[in-house]
Amino acid sequence: MLHLLGIDAGGTSTRAMLLTGDGTCLGIGRGGRGNPVSDGVEPAAAAIGTAVAGALSFAPEVQPAAITAVTLAMAGGSIGGPDAPWLRPTLDDLGVRAPSRIEPDLLAMFASGTHEPDGYGLVAGTGSTAVRVRGGEVDLTADGLGWLLGDKGSGFWIGHQIARAVAAHLDGRGPATSLTPAVLLALGVTETAEIDRNGRTASLGHLVTAVYGASPLRLASLAPLAFADTADAVSTEIVAEAEAALAELVLDVAVPELTGPLVVGGGVATQPRVREAVVGTVRARGVTGPVHRVDDGLVGAGVIALRRAGILVDAEIFTRLAETTASRRG
Amino acid sequence: MLHLLGIDAGGTSTRAMLLTGDGTCLGIGRGGRGNPVSDGVEPAAAAIGTAVAGALSFAPEVQPAAITAVTLAMAGGSIGGPDAPWLRPTLDDLGVRAPSRIEPDLLAMFASGTHEPDGYGLVAGTGSTAVRVRGGEVDLTADGLGWLLGDKGSGFWIGHQIARAVAAHLDGRGPATSLTPAVLLALGVTETAEIDRNGRTASLGHLVTAVYGASPLRLASLAPLAFADTADAVSTEIVAEAEAALAELVLDVAVPELTGPLVVGGGVATQPRVREAVVGTVRARGVTGPVHRVDDGLVGAGVIALRRAGILVDAEIFTRLAETTASRRG
Repeated sequence: MLHLLGIDAGGTSTRAMLLTGDGTCLGIGRGGRGNPVSDGVEPAAAAIGTAVAGALSFAPEVQPAAITAVTLAMAGGSIGGPDAPWLRPTLDDLGVRAPSRIEPDLLAMFASGTHEPDGYGLVAGTGSTAVRVRGGEVDLTADGLGWLLGDKGSGFWIGHQIARAVAAHLDGRGPATSLTPAVLLALGVTETAEIDRNGRTASLGHLVTAVYGASPLRLASLAPLAFADTADAVSTEIVAEAEAALAELVLDVAVPELTGPLVVGGGVATQPRVREAVVGTVRARGVTGPVHRVDDGLVGAGVIALRRAGILVDAEIFTRLAETTASRRG
Repeated sequence: MLHLLGIDAGGTSTRAMLLTGDGTCLGIGRGGRGNPVSDGVEPAAAAIGTAVAGALSFAPEVQPAAITAVTLAMAGGSIGGPDAPWLRPTLDDLGVRAPSRIEPDLLAMFASGTHEPDGYGLVAGTGSTAVRVRGGEVDLTADGLGWLLGDKGSGFWIGHQIARAVAAHLDGRGPATSLTPAVLLALGVTETAEIDRNGRTASLGHLVTAVYGASPLRLASLAPLAFADTADAVSTEIVAEAEAALAELVLDVAVPELTGPLVVGGGVATQPRVREAVVGTVRARGVTGPVHRVDDGLVGAGVIALRRAGILVDAEIFTRLAETTASRRG
């Protein structure tokens, strides 16, 4: 029996699965942040090791040395080469002797939603990226360039727009919004009626102190507030602009001759109203395949592992892998 | 003879002047970054000390102990109180016994352009702020909230938009722009025709590495590139949006009953085409006073010093101060 490891190493957390050649997930494990580019090679290797050890623990009957391949899905390309030499000592410690190979995280995300070889993927969480998949490989990627250079419509972008709208409200330049008390509360800023010597509310000064006192990326944590009050005009406008940007991102990679499913992942893109708006827009402009929602790239890492081992992943194998993975997640 | 010190302590550099009660500038000096909020109290005090020592060196006949007041114009309000106790040891070392008093940098900028007690100020350099001045005091401030929370139309904002436009061009999502070679050159990125495994130009990856490898604020240094090619549609659109935002910022503080000059400062707002566009827009909407361009808040720090000493700064005294300061600058 063929045994493989599929790993989905992300900037927030890492997941690994042990699977067999017929698409049965034997066990899954979790670890911390596993991206060697953003987190450093040693912490990433440790997080991935934790996840792999967790997956192996479900199947003590499987000899780690009998695993024939390791597929590592992650963003940011290959540090030190496509076989991840920085992960070798960690795998050796676990008794895993198989070679590893890095694959694009976006491809794993896409393959978590479908076994079709062609289609489109959209991930909008903290960042936003779209991908065109052709013949089971990434054909084109758009955006995913991070909070400073791109990612319009992402969680960071929404949180940033929210914070700016609240600052404009408190500064008297922008319209009143129910986001203001929500954002001040989320950032631990006490609202006050006090006015400072520049004729402005003291709450504004406290907001400035709180925002510049933390990493800019913390603004992404404000994004869910945009969905809290559907009657608020400021929130509604920000969400509508995000929806339009994410639809545009899918259309940036779409070509008429390539049809196939649209796989959607990430905390923003999977918000029901965002997903519906994006799907409505792209359908009207020719992207008409079925829509699949995914939580992460774990199933897809398994799908890619199977394919790299020469196994054709058909509907039956895909369904088995998706269902056995779901049951292991509990 | 009354002797006073006026200091304009900024986030980029610091200027100080020694002046007499009739508005004669006896000497000016310069120092480094002098904002205790952003630069720390000790470096700021040292920079201010350097500037004051430079100003005093022009007039060895003036006893530092005979100086009766120190006016310190700076952003960010009063650390440790309006009399800047953190500056006391530095002044003592220079033999200056006079009390100091912090004043808003925007007020000094305004008073550098006019002796009128009422009017409006607009500063757009790295950041952007507008101010309404009434009776020689700040009546209302708008924006100046920094690169994350505000400052639309500022040098940071323009540089950031430029970088995003170049990223979108290289990513195939946005229109081609002559900004691309200019920005890559400015950031030390070598253009290449090489394509990476995601189907994107390798130049994009190098841009990402360069931008995220430095402080976000470095993007402000790209702003001048927006004015280089007036035939480039992408540049033109970014500059036009900045102009509209800066005009809106003036209108945010404007009220019909307060007339007076508009004083304009900062590297963006004093660009001829930006100034003309802003002035054209605000004139059409009721802000019709004369427009004065200033380089910094040094003359204004002197004006405020005179006023706090009980001297009425009329046109004669103002002109003398502006002219003697200009001749000291050389």
